[in-house]
Amino acid sequence: MTYCVGLLLNEGMVLLSDTRTNAGLDNISVYRKMFFFEEPGERVIVILTAGSLSVTQTAISELREAVDDPESTPETSIMKAPTILMAAGIIGNKLAEVRGQIDDKLSAMRQGATASMIVAGQRRGAPMRLFLIYPEGNFIQATEDTPFLQIGEHKYGKPLLDRVVTPATSLEDAQKAVLLSMDSTLRSNLSVGMPLDLCVIEKDACAVGLKRRIEAGDEAFRQMSEAWSRALRDGFTQINI
Amino acid sequence: MTYCVGLLLNEGMVLLSDTRTNAGLDNISVYRKMFFFEEPGERVIVILTAGSLSVTQTAISELREAVDDPESTPETSIMKAPTILMAAGIIGNKLAEVRGQIDDKLSAMRQGATASMIVAGQRRGAPMRLFLIYPEGNFIQATEDTPFLQIGEHKYGKPLLDRVVTPATSLEDAQKAVLLSMDSTLRSNLSVGMPLDLCVIEKDACAVGLKRRIEAGDEAFRQMSEAWSRALRDGFTQINI
Repeated sequence: MTYCVGLLLNEGMVLLSDTRTNAGLDNISVYRKMFFFEEPGERVIVILTAGSLSVTQTAISELREAVDDPESTPETSIMKAPTILMAAGIIGNKLAEVRGQIDDKLSAMRQGATASMIVAGQRRGAPMRLFLIYPEGNFIQATEDTPFLQIGEHKYGKPLLDRVVTPATSLEDAQKAVLLSMDSTLRSNLSVGMPLDLCVIEKDACAVGLKRRIEAGDEAFRQMSEAWSRALRDGFTQINI
Repeated sequence: MTYCVGLLLNEGMVLLSDTRTNAGLDNISVYRKMFFFEEPGERVIVILTAGSLSVTQTAISELREAVDDPESTPETSIMKAPTILMAAGIIGNKLAEVRGQIDDKLSAMRQGATASMIVAGQRRGAPMRLFLIYPEGNFIQATEDTPFLQIGEHKYGKPLLDRVVTPATSLEDAQKAVLLSMDSTLRSNLSVGMPLDLCVIEKDACAVGLKRRIEAGDEAFRQMSEAWSRALRDGFTQINI
């Protein structure tokens, strides 16, 4: 499984992904699930992936090839698409296309392939956008009412986000929120695992401002996790039934 | 869906269930999912149910009929079975039998029926037992290492239980823990709903000591829910990244 989360806030966007992939419980690997497409100051797009690794790797590779292709057009390159909405359309079509191809291959084994993505992006002079792209290629956007999107194992980490995240949340608090949301997920689902990839895109920077890989055993993350456990237990103790 | 949780503690057992059943989002009803079998001082068994209502209602009714049958035997009545383990076996077999019958009926519509149960029980002179019974009739028990069992929509409410529940948790704190675990679930899954049924079985009482129905709009529950939200937000604020 996987856990990825993206926040769309007044001050910017904050994204977090784990790196665990598994084909059965006895075959576990580390793969990056956060991918950057940047032309600093002009356009930034970050993609988070969940689901079948063969689908997401192929889709990301083909999107990258299209961007690097000197003959790319606004219809094929997410870095040339007129808007981020249209870039999301390209990504959704690519995901659906690759998923369909691999699904056909797997049907011989009576299996299926599925994958989903979170896409965060901004181009110069336009608002920030955060999308969740479904396996079929259609998508939804984060809004003021629901300023976060999750893919993969989303349930364990949602109660915290529901309670603390609003569009006015600061970028610092937002990093704390996604990390604690991940912490709850890591504790409960073995198929979500360290290291983590965290990034912050400040509003109108059109560039990734902070990229941080948090390794297993990271001291700051461990301290935060313990402080949160203490805070939960203390809060619990103080409540009267 | 459903959320039911049971705790096996040094001082006793605490059980909580919601009451929402639904056949599609447009057909929602309230049904009790907590069932008592009691011979105070001698034996107590409480069953919580999740899954297809037609399966769980029929299984509980047939278990009740067997108990009330003047010709019942230790092989048919959970109140006469020599041990609670054997009672769990009777319940498991009944659940598997009814589920199989209804599953056969539904197969004509290419649908299936599934259900699971939590069973808490004690007979005089023997230890308390807490079981989770799977749709196939097999079961697992709560232990010192994992003193709680959940059925239905278990994910949202698990991080809290993981952090605060140990066998040494007091019965009062345990009630708080299951109610807050339910509160997180109610917020995130529409198919889990008020009112709630809470009960407490003190160790060696072999009787249900406390039965409480918590209606929608219950003031104490609302206050506890708000205090918990405040505690989470305060704790979140105080943590340094």
